[in-house]
Amino acid sequence: MPATYHAPVPDTRFVLKHVVGLPSLAGLPAFREASAEMVAAILDEGAKFVEGVVAPLNQPGDLQGCTHHDDGSVATPDGYREAYQAYVEGGWGTLAQSTEQGGQGLPHVLAAVFQEYMSSACMAFAMFPGLAQGAVAAIDAFGTDEQKKTYLPHMISGQWAGTMNLTEPQCGTDLGLIQSRAEPEKDGSWKLTGNKIFISGGEHDLTENIIHLVLAKTPGAPDTARGISLFIVPKFLPKADGTPGKRNALSCGSIEHKMGIHGNPTCVMNYDGATAFLLGKEMEGLKAMFVMMNAARLGVGCQGLSQAEVAMQNAAAYARERLQGRALSGPKNPDGPADPLLVHPDVRRMLLDGRAFTEGGRALYLWVALQVDLAAAAATAAEREAADDLLSLLTPVIKAWCTEEGYRQATNAQQVFGGHGYITEWGMEQFVRDARITMIYEGANGIQALDLVGRKLARHGGRALRTFLALVGETVAAGQADERLQPLAEALAGARKELEGATMWLMENAMAAPDNGAAGSMAYLRLLAIVAVGHCWLRMAAAALADDSGDFNAEFLEAKFLTARHFFEQQGPMAAAHAARVKAGAATMMAFPDSAF
Amino acid sequence: MPATYHAPVPDTRFVLKHVVGLPSLAGLPAFREASAEMVAAILDEGAKFVEGVVAPLNQPGDLQGCTHHDDGSVATPDGYREAYQAYVEGGWGTLAQSTEQGGQGLPHVLAAVFQEYMSSACMAFAMFPGLAQGAVAAIDAFGTDEQKKTYLPHMISGQWAGTMNLTEPQCGTDLGLIQSRAEPEKDGSWKLTGNKIFISGGEHDLTENIIHLVLAKTPGAPDTARGISLFIVPKFLPKADGTPGKRNALSCGSIEHKMGIHGNPTCVMNYDGATAFLLGKEMEGLKAMFVMMNAARLGVGCQGLSQAEVAMQNAAAYARERLQGRALSGPKNPDGPADPLLVHPDVRRMLLDGRAFTEGGRALYLWVALQVDLAAAAATAAEREAADDLLSLLTPVIKAWCTEEGYRQATNAQQVFGGHGYITEWGMEQFVRDARITMIYEGANGIQALDLVGRKLARHGGRALRTFLALVGETVAAGQADERLQPLAEALAGARKELEGATMWLMENAMAAPDNGAAGSMAYLRLLAIVAVGHCWLRMAAAALADDSGDFNAEFLEAKFLTARHFFEQQGPMAAAHAARVKAGAATMMAFPDSAF
Repeated sequence: MPATYHAPVPDTRFVLKHVVGLPSLAGLPAFREASAEMVAAILDEGAKFVEGVVAPLNQPGDLQGCTHHDDGSVATPDGYREAYQAYVEGGWGTLAQSTEQGGQGLPHVLAAVFQEYMSSACMAFAMFPGLAQGAVAAIDAFGTDEQKKTYLPHMISGQWAGTMNLTEPQCGTDLGLIQSRAEPEKDGSWKLTGNKIFISGGEHDLTENIIHLVLAKTPGAPDTARGISLFIVPKFLPKADGTPGKRNALSCGSIEHKMGIHGNPTCVMNYDGATAFLLGKEMEGLKAMFVMMNAARLGVGCQGLSQAEVAMQNAAAYARERLQGRALSGPKNPDGPADPLLVHPDVRRMLLDGRAFTEGGRALYLWVALQVDLAAAAATAAEREAADDLLSLLTPVIKAWCTEEGYRQATNAQQVFGGHGYITEWGMEQFVRDARITMIYEGANGIQALDLVGRKLARHGGRALRTFLALVGETVAAGQADERLQPLAEALAGARKELEGATMWLMENAMAAPDNGAAGSMAYLRLLAIVAVGHCWLRMAAAALADDSGDFNAEFLEAKFLTARHFFEQQGPMAAAHAARVKAGAATMMAFPDSAF
Repeated sequence: MPATYHAPVPDTRFVLKHVVGLPSLAGLPAFREASAEMVAAILDEGAKFVEGVVAPLNQPGDLQGCTHHDDGSVATPDGYREAYQAYVEGGWGTLAQSTEQGGQGLPHVLAAVFQEYMSSACMAFAMFPGLAQGAVAAIDAFGTDEQKKTYLPHMISGQWAGTMNLTEPQCGTDLGLIQSRAEPEKDGSWKLTGNKIFISGGEHDLTENIIHLVLAKTPGAPDTARGISLFIVPKFLPKADGTPGKRNALSCGSIEHKMGIHGNPTCVMNYDGATAFLLGKEMEGLKAMFVMMNAARLGVGCQGLSQAEVAMQNAAAYARERLQGRALSGPKNPDGPADPLLVHPDVRRMLLDGRAFTEGGRALYLWVALQVDLAAAAATAAEREAADDLLSLLTPVIKAWCTEEGYRQATNAQQVFGGHGYITEWGMEQFVRDARITMIYEGANGIQALDLVGRKLARHGGRALRTFLALVGETVAAGQADERLQPLAEALAGARKELEGATMWLMENAMAAPDNGAAGSMAYLRLLAIVAVGHCWLRMAAAALADDSGDFNAEFLEAKFLTARHFFEQQGPMAAAHAARVKAGAATMMAFPDSAF
């Protein structure tokens, strides 16, 4: 009874039509390649690929894990090499890359769809190409023409892998503490020395080369985050003909034993005077790093979503099949020994909580992914600016909220299985273990909340939040005008008002005393998430009532509307609670005596 | 850097003094043995025992796990045998057992204290004696004099272990589906045949005998839960001299690979015409089972609490030592490379959320454990009745809420460690994996919520809740009269009012349509938990302000008061949210089309 996965293609189609608004974007050059036929092909072929090739790797890879050999090499689980080869040959990594660099030139939002499918099918496997994308983005943004030419085509095709090397034993969030050092060489290259930990995919057997992007300090740089620089450090130094050449002075010292994602090696990386190439300017590494990180953060939010999706699919199937107890309103399966779990309201609550998250989270995730496209390619400067604002504001929300809820809903899905959920064989506990890392890496969720409250809110005088609130206000107004939508619209209006109140409180109380902002930052992020997902839900509820195109069957549309109602019934009341927590401020927390902790 | 554990003796002392009110109980016969010196000795010696003997087993036992051999025997991890022997020799299992049966005749609430310490030190190990206690309670309540004489002394001393055998592959919650059968023999014994799964400690090498309590059906019994009977099925049939005799026809077929509690084998048990002895009356097994289960449910709630406690202790220590980033209000450790994590408000929030749960949960858990003593031994019939009512009402709350919050807070403690929290070596991820089972076994949490709303609320015309609300009302009134306590008292008054409103809603809407009760049952349980824990917190806050005995230092009392304030700031606003969820009812959930799940 191993877990299974089916890519949620109909739901993706609904979101692309009604939230992303794909048809209306056809006029934009960036969407030129995204014809209806192309989109349908990507969804269907993508589903076929992940279901047939990737999903079967998930449970065996968790049980087998990766192997670190004495020579420093790392073997991935059986089947990973073949699946990766199929991924490269299928061109799945090139969807949203520019045609000039060998990509397919499709919108980012479609790559985001495929990323969710991949990650649901096997998160540990999907991490390999996922990480390369952050490295590609950084080289694309800051590389010299020669660097781009040397690395990007190989990395985009997937022939070469990419990693991010930030963390050191003494230094996680606080990058000012980095001790890795780079010394300039006469030929313009650098010699990089240091130890990095928690490097996902730092060494493996999937690709002929691995391109490490490594943060380090240059001589005379200050001991703060502003002193760090970013370097390209290839495992094999590329030769002039583009093939991998001399082995560089770096190695994987060991891999960690950890709670989950066993199929992806978490490496200790040792750089011993490795040949390195500066990416961008000296002491501007932080800026380049954030290009990597922002892409990665949306990807991590997607991972949280992906684990809840696959876990909830299995929970729903189990609840349909497992016979246990009788409905309170009388037997629903009178000829059987018991009714299916699905008759019990509390089981339905868990499943609908799960759907309200996965479908709402998917809508928000893809809507934010769309902003990546629009920020680069919308028709007017004002639209590009608005898209960039929304992307910036909501990236920490996607990262923190989709991972926190992803873990919670994966846990709930496990709960539906009762005792079987705890047994390895059923696969449910793996989803929880794999989901758990997403709340931690690429900036722990608390850091996301600080980023939101400390940076993103204040940026451009609060312009992003104003843009967002205005959009939500329009959706609310439209909903209030429709009798069937009105209760949902009122719930969203209430949550929006709580968000305004909490924001006002922060403006009045956190400017002078930043601890007040930090203390309530996570509650504020959760409040913003409810409004942002609620905004998607209200739009989807309206679309579910209005869509008579025949694109979706009546049951699908009815289920969509009811899930929207469930979301507002269950999550709506949380808005006031989060706002109250924001307004509690820091006084109690900071008064607590240090030595009593 | 393995995790460590220190039994929270000062906090236990505070709860025993101010919540349990131990000194004032000295006049009751049941508390005769519980002198101040005896209590201090149990706390201090208990702490010493678990810290020195039990805690060192935790991480190694998780890594090694149990081993099932071809002959059906099961080996526990290295060190378990010796530690168990020390547990038996120390008489730790006999604390609250009656002196007539070889126990020490102490109040149950003291055994509950020790149970928490044991479980924090090593939950998988603590399960072995913990399970025996449920079996002891059932034999004590329903056994014949001969059965009591044969089994209880050996089981109470710990020389023999005990298990509960309920679950079968097709049958978890719904015991009407049990297929195990018992046939009567001429000598008054029975032959029992069937397969049981998920039997914790079903086979192991710690004791010379294992006494299984097994649910099965007798000939002609109906296929409902009312048809089941409970049997004593010893691994070795006791001889007349009280030593283990002939091997019974039962065996452990395999042990499960599972998410956590690796040190405790989860067994498939096969009964092949095993000699069995009816416990209590035929077809009254359910009643006997609930005696076992109710004891076990408090114990499982305690497990949830215990994992949060040990995890949060380690998180606090890490937050004090780990240097990362600077305080928003300026450096607090200017001579060091960075400030400790503890300066960051969001880290404090997580730690204080943890304390608000562990200290509040401990208070509630011990207060409910006290009701076990008072239900049996309070001075008047009215007091005994009130204690039994409170015990009955709050057992599902302890089971479900302490496990749910225990898991959540263990997860938060892991979060404080950042990436290190995900790495096996640090031990934090084990607490999460071990805590996870507590939400599932001994009745999944959803079942606890149904038990609360469907049975416990209605029992005796709602008498238990009225008793509880009256008690809370008295505490609120006392708090409102004290200026320093007033905001806390108002928060509790607000939560109490939400509970009254939600209860009224259930009375009006769930009698005729039980789905309405079931749909909101978990929200109702969480709401009741906030009021129940809040009640303990307000009493503790008042005591922290008033205690000038010198029993506790000023910093401890200040921290206690501030943690109370934190609890009401953070959890108080949740009361209205849960009440709103209760009042949302079942309409949306039940309208959702079955085939769309």
